[in-house]
Amino acid sequence: MNMASEKAKTELYPVPLTIEGSAVLHQMFRVRWAAWQSVSPEDRKALVNEAATVLGEMEKDGQSALFSLLGHKGDLMFVHFRETFDEVNGAELRLANLKLNQFLEPTASYVSMVELGLYDSSMKAYRMLAEQGVTPHSEQWNQVLEETMERSRQAMKPRLNPKIPDTRYVTFYPMDRRRGEEKNWYVLPMEERQRQMDEHGTVGRRYAGRVQQIISGSIGFDDWEWGVDLFANDAAVFKKLIYEMRFDKVSAEYSNFGTFYLGIRVPAGKLGELMSGMLPEK
Amino acid sequence: MNMASEKAKTELYPVPLTIEGSAVLHQMFRVRWAAWQSVSPEDRKALVNEAATVLGEMEKDGQSALFSLLGHKGDLMFVHFRETFDEVNGAELRLANLKLNQFLEPTASYVSMVELGLYDSSMKAYRMLAEQGVTPHSEQWNQVLEETMERSRQAMKPRLNPKIPDTRYVTFYPMDRRRGEEKNWYVLPMEERQRQMDEHGTVGRRYAGRVQQIISGSIGFDDWEWGVDLFANDAAVFKKLIYEMRFDKVSAEYSNFGTFYLGIRVPAGKLGELMSGMLPEK
Amino acid sequence: MNMASEKAKTELYPVPLTIEGSAVLHQMFRVRWAAWQSVSPEDRKALVNEAATVLGEMEKDGQSALFSLLGHKGDLMFVHFRETFDEVNGAELRLANLKLNQFLEPTASYVSMVELGLYDSSMKAYRMLAEQGVTPHSEQWNQVLEETMERSRQAMKPRLNPKIPDTRYVTFYPMDRRRGEEKNWYVLPMEERQRQMDEHGTVGRRYAGRVQQIISGSIGFDDWEWGVDLFANDAAVFKKLIYEMRFDKVSAEYSNFGTFYLGIRVPAGKLGELMSGMLPEK
Amino acid sequence: MNMASEKAKTELYPVPLTIEGSAVLHQMFRVRWAAWQSVSPEDRKALVNEAATVLGEMEKDGQSALFSLLGHKGDLMFVHFRETFDEVNGAELRLANLKLNQFLEPTASYVSMVELGLYDSSMKAYRMLAEQGVTPHSEQWNQVLEETMERSRQAMKPRLNPKIPDTRYVTFYPMDRRRGEEKNWYVLPMEERQRQMDEHGTVGRRYAGRVQQIISGSIGFDDWEWGVDLFANDAAVFKKLIYEMRFDKVSAEYSNFGTFYLGIRVPAGKLGELMSGMLPEK
Amino acid sequence: MNMASEKAKTELYPVPLTIEGSAVLHQMFRVRWAAWQSVSPEDRKALVNEAATVLGEMEKDGQSALFSLLGHKGDLMFVHFRETFDEVNGAELRLANLKLNQFLEPTASYVSMVELGLYDSSMKAYRMLAEQGVTPHSEQWNQVLEETMERSRQAMKPRLNPKIPDTRYVTFYPMDRRRGEEKNWYVLPMEERQRQMDEHGTVGRRYAGRVQQIISGSIGFDDWEWGVDLFANDAAVFKKLIYEMRFDKVSAEYSNFGTFYLGIRVPAGKLGELMSGMLPEK
Repeated sequence: MNMASEKAKTELYPVPLTIEGSAVLHQMFRVRWAAWQSVSPEDRKALVNEAATVLGEMEKDGQSALFSLLGHKGDLMFVHFRETFDEVNGAELRLANLKLNQFLEPTASYVSMVELGLYDSSMKAYRMLAEQGVTPHSEQWNQVLEETMERSRQAMKPRLNPKIPDTRYVTFYPMDRRRGEEKNWYVLPMEERQRQMDEHGTVGRRYAGRVQQIISGSIGFDDWEWGVDLFANDAAVFKKLIYEMRFDKVSAEYSNFGTFYLGIRVPAGKLGELMSGMLPEK
Repeated sequence: MNMASEKAKTELYPVPLTIEGSAVLHQMFRVRWAAWQSVSPEDRKALVNEAATVLGEMEKDGQSALFSLLGHKGDLMFVHFRETFDEVNGAELRLANLKLNQFLEPTASYVSMVELGLYDSSMKAYRMLAEQGVTPHSEQWNQVLEETMERSRQAMKPRLNPKIPDTRYVTFYPMDRRRGEEKNWYVLPMEERQRQMDEHGTVGRRYAGRVQQIISGSIGFDDWEWGVDLFANDAAVFKKLIYEMRFDKVSAEYSNFGTFYLGIRVPAGKLGELMSGMLPEK
Repeated sequence: MNMASEKAKTELYPVPLTIEGSAVLHQMFRVRWAAWQSVSPEDRKALVNEAATVLGEMEKDGQSALFSLLGHKGDLMFVHFRETFDEVNGAELRLANLKLNQFLEPTASYVSMVELGLYDSSMKAYRMLAEQGVTPHSEQWNQVLEETMERSRQAMKPRLNPKIPDTRYVTFYPMDRRRGEEKNWYVLPMEERQRQMDEHGTVGRRYAGRVQQIISGSIGFDDWEWGVDLFANDAAVFKKLIYEMRFDKVSAEYSNFGTFYLGIRVPAGKLGELMSGMLPEK
Repeated sequence: MNMASEKAKTELYPVPLTIEGSAVLHQMFRVRWAAWQSVSPEDRKALVNEAATVLGEMEKDGQSALFSLLGHKGDLMFVHFRETFDEVNGAELRLANLKLNQFLEPTASYVSMVELGLYDSSMKAYRMLAEQGVTPHSEQWNQVLEETMERSRQAMKPRLNPKIPDTRYVTFYPMDRRRGEEKNWYVLPMEERQRQMDEHGTVGRRYAGRVQQIISGSIGFDDWEWGVDLFANDAAVFKKLIYEMRFDKVSAEYSNFGTFYLGIRVPAGKLGELMSGMLPEK
Repeated sequence: MNMASEKAKTELYPVPLTIEGSAVLHQMFRVRWAAWQSVSPEDRKALVNEAATVLGEMEKDGQSALFSLLGHKGDLMFVHFRETFDEVNGAELRLANLKLNQFLEPTASYVSMVELGLYDSSMKAYRMLAEQGVTPHSEQWNQVLEETMERSRQAMKPRLNPKIPDTRYVTFYPMDRRRGEEKNWYVLPMEERQRQMDEHGTVGRRYAGRVQQIISGSIGFDDWEWGVDLFANDAAVFKKLIYEMRFDKVSAEYSNFGTFYLGIRVPAGKLGELMSGMLPEK
């Protein structure tokens, strides 16, 4: 073992491995209710039918979902999970060309990619490579890491390309890790970041069965680093979970949060009910 | 008593218990006065009647209220307190489909849930559990805390599902506890946070009878952590109270405040008067 | 003298007394010049006459004033000083229902209440009460402070309900005292704040006769803590005064400033001239 | 020499003298190209002619200038230099009432007053007054400073009421001196500020002949403290100059910068060419 | 060697040389889909043909490119690389006067100039000049630096005036180096900045062949200091690269990032397909 590997042992390579799955788009729209009111019942029906048919196809296999949003940030939120950004953009263009779109005004969106962070496996791999004195970014190093990621991709395939959970409520929000002058996530040692993420995960796991979480990464795609979707059948649990997590070191000291969107699921088949001013029952 | 409980005694579990009540929505609208001017007196009357009837129903049991806002942030504010977010969304959709809505433009909103923070009971329960050496998140631990919350829910039921107070004035604003690099509420020990909240409450209690306060939590629902509604028959008292509180440690050092909305109550039956350009007398 | 009063002597009660006067509203509007151009001269005249008549009534006793604003933040600013927020809201609704309002677009506003801060009298009263060992918030304590405020209200009545000064220029801006992690106004001792306010006032007094200043408080009413109106017949003096003040400790270290609005007074009777595209001469 | 003057010698009066010249307005507009497309060639010609005539008059003596802006922040920028804010507001109202204004949408503006900072003369005067033991703000003190300013006004008259330079490119941006918790310009000693300004000026002077700079002060008039206009016949030089300056202590540590607007000069006589979609050649 | 050069040796001149190439404009537009829907198929065809012809000409030699954007920040992004800002503005005006522009709404833009930073050559030149005791900004000093830049301009000509790479995906974002109270890029010694830039470049070079990067400088032209365009045929690699770089000292501690735009390339010839609601295949 040489000097370089000694150093490597004490200071691990800092970049955690991640694996990527579905391309994701969240779209928020305000309904132009005033204009919608002037549409005849027959025309409304035709417009809704066209939209419900397209959305119904998209819903298959949990690829897309519609939510009725609370508050003025939007009335509708469409969420799309697809194999590629091309398909996501295709879905977006298809909705944009629906006749119903004449009554929708885009207010927000979020572009991301389902991401699983591999803090544990990364740390193990980096430690092993360091102990073996393998030079970072050498062919051997790259190969070991690629194998690590590939094993995870196989093991976690359903989580990389998830169906949109079929719960009553969703909350979506983007977030960053802080790069403050004193509290800077990106200069913490790998071990400390792994420890904090692990603590954080422990809280999350206590909510298993009550909340499903899907994390998507948006570095390079949108204005925050990650998007978080929480799905549950009891909306109050979102508050409980996020409040409890806020006391975790990683949230308390190293996280910034963006805008929150709270939505209620509306299946394609009930779009007409929603557009006539009634929230469909579960 | 074992080592773990020793530690627990010196460093209490940090997350204060909260209990949740009504789902809440604040909606701010600007009136399209220019368009409204071109409506004939008969049509105005019909539009106002429809809206006043719906709003009148919603007002029953103090579930919804209308306020005339000061300034350009909005002309009208609707506040809704309901059992569930489904009902809140239902109220929102119902208003959106009123004909009067053609003359309303949404400018802001706030989504939250009535919340009572149980700092005192939490601290007592956590201390007792620690002294008894009960492992956090064990079945017994969960049960004790659930009982603590349930007792509070019973004792404070009217405060969890309050009627909207029938005062002349309201001020609404959202707020956060700070997570600054040096001043970070979420890393303070439980005891210190409880002490500051207690000091804060003491100031508030001196205004009992003059100001009614309803706190709602919005973590996971909207962009700030809490919403505050103050109700009074003398608007100047809002300034007095909030200014006095600003010198409390918890406000001075650990609070950020959002946008303030000052409104004057207008009962459904006087909507027509308001829409004809006159503020109804008390 | 007991221990408590000893402590009180060394650390004075921190909240300075304030007395409140007129309710205040600033309203900024952009003129829809394009739409205005298509109005016939006769209709223009009728619209202007109606508006000038209403504004003329409001101008009586210096209660309301119109200013032509510089720049894109607005073309017109209406300032209203009234006894109550009800009357302020009434004035707002009355303007909103003018036919001329079809050509006005609200861009900003500010809601506040004329405020006089009583740092000097507060400190004297708190010192005396402390020396006499009077318990804070006791009946006696409250009575002494209420008397202090009442005396000031009587002595400063004209300043609590001022007429809008009849100068050529106005500048309006909102401001906050800072609550930074290190520089936090609200945790400074009363004596230090009084000292800084006194230094600040000394600068202001050197501009007596050239600038009239009206401070209004907006805690609980709008998004900043105070609004400042400066009135002068020479606009350059605004810059001189505020620049000089910026070197005061209270401005340099403890103040944040919002948006500035510079306006030129236009009497109601000259509204027609302004709306025809000419700034009325003084 | 007494004690007071001793102190004064060691700590100079902190407010640098400034002298003021022309009132300034920058106006940014987006062209409503879609609406413009539907105007007939004859009507276009008439609209352009009216506007070009008015602008042509304003251009005389370098009082106003039109620039074609790059990017979406605006298509046109008008810059006005006038004797008074009344004349500036008059110019603004005149443009607002042009028929061409139906196709312009205001996007931004800046209100300021040409300012020359007299750091060197201020320091000399303050030192002399301190050595002579003259009490600050005494009649004698005021007189000496007024004479200092008057001498500068005479000497620098052309720079106080400059013509808008006739270069091909302009860049405009507003800026502040920082009042951070640690880096606070306004608490630095006069000598240190003078030293930094001098260093800054040295960089600027190396660009003499290639860049003309006009500084205007906006404290009390608009949202930043100063506006900067740079004029050059080679746009790349803006980047070179500002980048080099950014390493000056005063820029690196004590400056915040606002929005930048890059424009290309278009003389009134070539407005028609621009409005037909072609950038006029130099 | 004299004292001055000794100092110069220990503290190098701080401003890195840069060389400039093409003027650059990024334009983001939202499509008015609702209005577009009401256009007849024939008119659509004519509008698309006109636009595609103009865009087709602009595409020659990789001067302009069109991208379909994901999310609500815009539907289309045009990127233009030209010799001068005059040509860039000309391209902008030409697009603004297309009939298709009636259906486009500008949402964002970015103005910059291709820039190559010469940290390595700057440091060598500054060292040499210091060792030779050449006075900064003397004629000799200027000449040596001009020669340094000219050599680089010759050697890197294709990188100064690049063709827009012909990849499927682009991500564009602006960025700043931080000037925080503690972490301030502009006060770091030249050597340290060079070291960090070198580390950063090393990461980038590992992505050679997978990602093409074009940096443009915008100091003096737009609101951030630099714009970054990354081009790739696999969008996920943007996230990988930027995430890895975020752990570099220069990104972790000294960088702020603006809004991210993710786009998919659409050749002029396929504009019709896109405007009919389908993303053209590669």
